[in-house]
Amino acid sequence: MYDFSFFNPTRILFGKNAISQIADWIPRSAKVLMTYGGGSIKKNGVYDRVIKALGTRELHEFSGIEPNPAYETLMEAVEHVKRVDADFLLAVGGGSVVDGTKFIAAASRFEEGDPWSLLEGARVEAAVPMACVLTLPATGSESNSGAVISHKGKKQKRFFGSPHCYPQFAALDPTTTFSLDKRQTVNGVVDAYVHVLEQYLTFPVNSPLQDRMAEGILLTLIEEAPKVLENPEDYEARANIMWCCTQALNGLIGCGVPHDWATHMIGHELTALFGLDHAQTLAVVLPGVLRRQLKVKTEKLAQYSRRVWNLEDPFAAIEATEMFFRKIGMRTRLSEYGIEAGFEEVPERLKAKGFVLGEHRDIQPEHSLEILKTRV
Amino acid sequence: MYDFSFFNPTRILFGKNAISQIADWIPRSAKVLMTYGGGSIKKNGVYDRVIKALGTRELHEFSGIEPNPAYETLMEAVEHVKRVDADFLLAVGGGSVVDGTKFIAAASRFEEGDPWSLLEGARVEAAVPMACVLTLPATGSESNSGAVISHKGKKQKRFFGSPHCYPQFAALDPTTTFSLDKRQTVNGVVDAYVHVLEQYLTFPVNSPLQDRMAEGILLTLIEEAPKVLENPEDYEARANIMWCCTQALNGLIGCGVPHDWATHMIGHELTALFGLDHAQTLAVVLPGVLRRQLKVKTEKLAQYSRRVWNLEDPFAAIEATEMFFRKIGMRTRLSEYGIEAGFEEVPERLKAKGFVLGEHRDIQPEHSLEILKTRV
Repeated sequence: MYDFSFFNPTRILFGKNAISQIADWIPRSAKVLMTYGGGSIKKNGVYDRVIKALGTRELHEFSGIEPNPAYETLMEAVEHVKRVDADFLLAVGGGSVVDGTKFIAAASRFEEGDPWSLLEGARVEAAVPMACVLTLPATGSESNSGAVISHKGKKQKRFFGSPHCYPQFAALDPTTTFSLDKRQTVNGVVDAYVHVLEQYLTFPVNSPLQDRMAEGILLTLIEEAPKVLENPEDYEARANIMWCCTQALNGLIGCGVPHDWATHMIGHELTALFGLDHAQTLAVVLPGVLRRQLKVKTEKLAQYSRRVWNLEDPFAAIEATEMFFRKIGMRTRLSEYGIEAGFEEVPERLKAKGFVLGEHRDIQPEHSLEILKTRV
Repeated sequence: MYDFSFFNPTRILFGKNAISQIADWIPRSAKVLMTYGGGSIKKNGVYDRVIKALGTRELHEFSGIEPNPAYETLMEAVEHVKRVDADFLLAVGGGSVVDGTKFIAAASRFEEGDPWSLLEGARVEAAVPMACVLTLPATGSESNSGAVISHKGKKQKRFFGSPHCYPQFAALDPTTTFSLDKRQTVNGVVDAYVHVLEQYLTFPVNSPLQDRMAEGILLTLIEEAPKVLENPEDYEARANIMWCCTQALNGLIGCGVPHDWATHMIGHELTALFGLDHAQTLAVVLPGVLRRQLKVKTEKLAQYSRRVWNLEDPFAAIEATEMFFRKIGMRTRLSEYGIEAGFEEVPERLKAKGFVLGEHRDIQPEHSLEILKTRV
């Protein structure tokens, strides 16, 4: 395997009482800004449970963080942080709220001009301490140091990350996910599944333990997803999916192995251009990337086919993966989302970011168009 | 799965350059006490590499920490810490040196009488910051908060742990393990293997991801151990074993599942009474514990047989496990260590600690004698 370093200081509080435990990990004297999205947490009782757990702490709120959290919205929150002098941010929601709150945390302590520059490579030197109560397992943001932020005005979607941005804790209560609808649930499963493949389906470097951990997440998602679609209040299946999503992108399975991320980078452009859900873009792009990369991924594809799908043909797993997505209700073709054209500018957009993609850096920006044309 | 919390702040530095990176994580102004064992680190070059990495920092040394680190030895180190006012402890060695250094760290800040009370339940309120350079993969101590300490005078071997005792970093360079002899290598593999079984081979609680991660470690150890016995300088195999040993006891696979640890607890008494290596005691005791617990472990034994050994009979895996230990050169019978009697006092010793063992708490102290009699 490759040399690596691994560090993940996020404390996981997992189970039916996770929310009540958050008070143990927020200073009594904290001035808390609670951040959330559209208000589903008020319908499903999570809001009330968090308020109760926070007790007598000084509490402020910022709501309205949207899916694909927007720089414009988040900068309003930064003003809020400064106005009330908040010293602890508590994100309550899914990956977008957590990602957005990481940006709020970093931008609130950024002193050198427009915080958008954090999305263009400026270094995070400090951040307001933050933590989260997760209600939508998917992105892994609850225990990693990265975030993806969109700029509505610029039609851009970009990544940033910093060790200052690890959540101090992540409260994971599977019962908070009972009220997710089918689309949210399936998005989460597909997102985590593709996170694993981006770190696993590359080329062999003799990393048998990382491989088996990755396969363990894939097999578990394949088994558990149908159960929650059948019965959204299946606690055990919800819990297993939640734990899979965290493990898929907390850094562990990516230790010492090559990473791909081409599917994500092309997918981000589809979200920026067409507003597709993040996971929808992954389900569309992934089969195209894998088919184009057949040759350089053959060895790991063979292993994936055999161990995860029990198939002899190394390439049959690509079909099986797409069929799995479709079986749980995810559309995998652009035309199914009403998109037949308009993606011709993806190569230019990737080029503007200086991206050359794939674990071998052999997917040039212009290849993204070839890939997308196969996915209409 | 059960509710759980998980926290592991140890930074892993893994690979051929891990030792040179330690300087990035020790304050320039630190007064370092470097702790080690019998001096093998001077023969294999690790000592020189650590000294070089530490650069101009104030450096003190304490050597002579023995296998099954002794309270008596460690208290000499505590005096040393106080005398030179060391504010950073760097353990360089195997699990015994790391465990011992955790005790030195806690005992140096313990103000209320004899620090042995830390091994009898007294709470660790503070500890000197510590980190480690690991040279013998086995115990997992490099990234957990626990330690096992022996008292020569009292013939006792006891556990303590505290969040204050996580190593701040663990430098894991597989090349440092090239010079391990066969006995040390095999001890490490068996130790990690049994760590996994103590957390995996219990009863099902619907934890498919934890199970698969555990099985991934077991399968990898089974594959890689023969390679390093064949070629002690097989870097990839050494690296894979090292990573398995860390993952086996860093808390992750134990999240949300029942734990056993009966084999460890009975094994500790054999070390205290007869001086057997820790891993030797595990190899002796485990098959006896598993055979006694056949009924309550049937479901997980069936899974273990099927997934790890490809065997249909749920109980055949017990035999396969013992054969694996023997194949890599570990003796599994007390008589092979020259012990045919003298273990009659084990039940009394367990009783004195108030131990009732096993994931069902159905192994009374007196049952330990029945188990040991089957292992002569």
